[in-house]
Amino acid sequence: MTSHSSHAQKFDVRMRGFASRSTVKQTLEWIDHSLPSLQSESVPLEAAAGRVLAQSVVSEVNVPGFSRGMMDGFAVRAEDTLGATPYSQIALEVIGQSLPGEAFEGQVLPGQAVRIMTGAPIPTGADAVLQAEYVEIRSSKIVTQTAVAPRKHVGQPGEDIAAGATVLTAPRTLRPQDIGVLSSIGVAAVEAVQMPRVHVVTTGSELLPAGSKPQGYNITDANSPMLLSLIRRDGGLATHAGIIPDDPQQILKALMADVDIVVVSGGSSVGQEDHVPMLLAEHGELNIHGVAMRPSSPIGMGRLGKRLVFLLPGNPVSCLCGYDFFVGRAVRLLGGLGRDWPYRKRSYRLQRKLISMVGRVDYARVLLVDGEIEPIATSGASVLSSTTRADGFVVVPEDSEGYAEGSQVDVFLYD
Amino acid sequence: MTSHSSHAQKFDVRMRGFASRSTVKQTLEWIDHSLPSLQSESVPLEAAAGRVLAQSVVSEVNVPGFSRGMMDGFAVRAEDTLGATPYSQIALEVIGQSLPGEAFEGQVLPGQAVRIMTGAPIPTGADAVLQAEYVEIRSSKIVTQTAVAPRKHVGQPGEDIAAGATVLTAPRTLRPQDIGVLSSIGVAAVEAVQMPRVHVVTTGSELLPAGSKPQGYNITDANSPMLLSLIRRDGGLATHAGIIPDDPQQILKALMADVDIVVVSGGSSVGQEDHVPMLLAEHGELNIHGVAMRPSSPIGMGRLGKRLVFLLPGNPVSCLCGYDFFVGRAVRLLGGLGRDWPYRKRSYRLQRKLISMVGRVDYARVLLVDGEIEPIATSGASVLSSTTRADGFVVVPEDSEGYAEGSQVDVFLYD
Repeated sequence: MTSHSSHAQKFDVRMRGFASRSTVKQTLEWIDHSLPSLQSESVPLEAAAGRVLAQSVVSEVNVPGFSRGMMDGFAVRAEDTLGATPYSQIALEVIGQSLPGEAFEGQVLPGQAVRIMTGAPIPTGADAVLQAEYVEIRSSKIVTQTAVAPRKHVGQPGEDIAAGATVLTAPRTLRPQDIGVLSSIGVAAVEAVQMPRVHVVTTGSELLPAGSKPQGYNITDANSPMLLSLIRRDGGLATHAGIIPDDPQQILKALMADVDIVVVSGGSSVGQEDHVPMLLAEHGELNIHGVAMRPSSPIGMGRLGKRLVFLLPGNPVSCLCGYDFFVGRAVRLLGGLGRDWPYRKRSYRLQRKLISMVGRVDYARVLLVDGEIEPIATSGASVLSSTTRADGFVVVPEDSEGYAEGSQVDVFLYD
Repeated sequence: MTSHSSHAQKFDVRMRGFASRSTVKQTLEWIDHSLPSLQSESVPLEAAAGRVLAQSVVSEVNVPGFSRGMMDGFAVRAEDTLGATPYSQIALEVIGQSLPGEAFEGQVLPGQAVRIMTGAPIPTGADAVLQAEYVEIRSSKIVTQTAVAPRKHVGQPGEDIAAGATVLTAPRTLRPQDIGVLSSIGVAAVEAVQMPRVHVVTTGSELLPAGSKPQGYNITDANSPMLLSLIRRDGGLATHAGIIPDDPQQILKALMADVDIVVVSGGSSVGQEDHVPMLLAEHGELNIHGVAMRPSSPIGMGRLGKRLVFLLPGNPVSCLCGYDFFVGRAVRLLGGLGRDWPYRKRSYRLQRKLISMVGRVDYARVLLVDGEIEPIATSGASVLSSTTRADGFVVVPEDSEGYAEGSQVDVFLYD
């Protein structure tokens, strides 16, 4: 398509640069202050692992609910075994057995014992368990050479969890063993923080949907499948509007989805086709536009109704970096998770100097080579493969010119 | 239920203790040698994040597929700008525009320029981009005060990814950005390692299903929901047979499920109701029975047809510990993931001594208190809440008597 010069002029107005850039710190503060309060929902226990508890859980029951044997052996009256030694053995009559879930229903009288399995109820009258290893079995009798103290190998009611005790305190990301404990006290569902609903809106008339082969001057959308994976990793419920044509009405409609967070990929800057910042400013608030960082500086964010809206650059590395710095934080916080990146942080020696510019934060991809790191030289933010070749990244703060060769720096590892 | 003494005698034969315990090291070696080879399957891109690549991916296309502008500005012939300075400005005529996906179809002749957006195709004849910031726009002309070098701000075809290049090398756990790169080269599905199918079989006639309130001498199953969560955490496809009565035929039927790994909870020991080890020995192989560790020593494992079978103790802490030491390793390895525990490891100072016994491995739960750790004193392996109160655990090796107060020890943190 060729265009007329009048056309070009019309666009000039918008090609005006960013009014005022924000710092990364200001932007993070804006996010933290803009988050709505957390919502909770009832989640069945089988789906609750990894979810964040919104309400502390108090047990209504004792665990165990009864005195139980903690060893395989024989339930006895401890006093009956007093004085037993190899030279003065004591015999007891075995009058029955207690199995888990199948209690011995009689009473243990002096001189008697009941075979008992681990976890089975201690019969009335008995107050200790003689371990199977320490007795000799003779027909219907057992003979012991050792005495046993009262309560030995007997689990007391409420010993694991007492009725009325707080078992798990909110907020807490539920571990597999928490699910086990909740089950043991008869909890079938917990109140958990709702997973934030995050809608990805992709703009760019040059884009082909994920799964298509790039053809001619069209490129295949890399950002949407990446963003959907990132959002799910951070505990969000991700949905995708698809690729929306560069038409303000259609973009606006996509922004109005019934979700908590909208993430727009592409058209975030001040170029001629960058409708989204203007749309957001007109119909909601554009609170941040342009951040002093690299890549990802042409990023925007604001509010539209109750939604938080993030405008990410279309360049894939900028998109990833903008997600990791800002969107991911919002998704995790709104889901009750922490601010921290889901990347392991480790300190490494820098093999080559890493240059940055004072006044902006740098997201520098690095390679691990022989236990040290080296920066990846790239021609720009469009080279997404720099983030697949990289083992992680270094964040160079605003007030730094970078790091000298040989410095020890913190690396966030991608896996 | 009461029982007769003849009954008790019949059971004695089985209450015989473990024939020979294995060490933890021998048991891990058995697992590593017993794993079947990995299987792979085609996984659509949108579900591939976190999956393990089974086949390296080679790109069939160049990314970008064409020369593109890397900045918003004007596509020019670099030679036209030679000698431009503030005192010797050069004017070029703007003859059209190139947008992403909407190329300028004419040719840029000497003295001409085409407005271009980031990502748009470089028109024929042009070989550099003058950044918008550096030119002045006057009606249908632009005026530059600076020269630009050939190829400046021009992305070359294949610069990100060259056709024929290996983009991702198997095995690799796919990151969100990998999904983006795969999408950009038109890949719609990848060959990934199959997620192992893991079936949980719960035994114990005293057990009520998860979700029920414990009543009388019955306790609610804690192990199955915990195991299902653990298996899913480690990348397995978990299924549950439900609670199987203590009947050998019914247990055997549950063991024969069409899966890769069977995990039996309960009845793993040598007690009278412990059918499972005998069943496994009769119908398959019981390769390990009894491991020198605490808790979880009455653990068993073996083969049944092509299945690996793990017999875990019914005591919940033993069950968790046995899973973490052995089953989790098998699940992760069979899914193409690493041997490593999914727990962060950090070194802490021990506030109180931690006693262990030479000849066995100890799994000691610890609390983090003021940046140091202290062991949790528990009355036994049945107290699952010790693992929810704990912040992590310390593994005390076989040849150690434990650690003195003040020692620096490695802790595996539960979250």
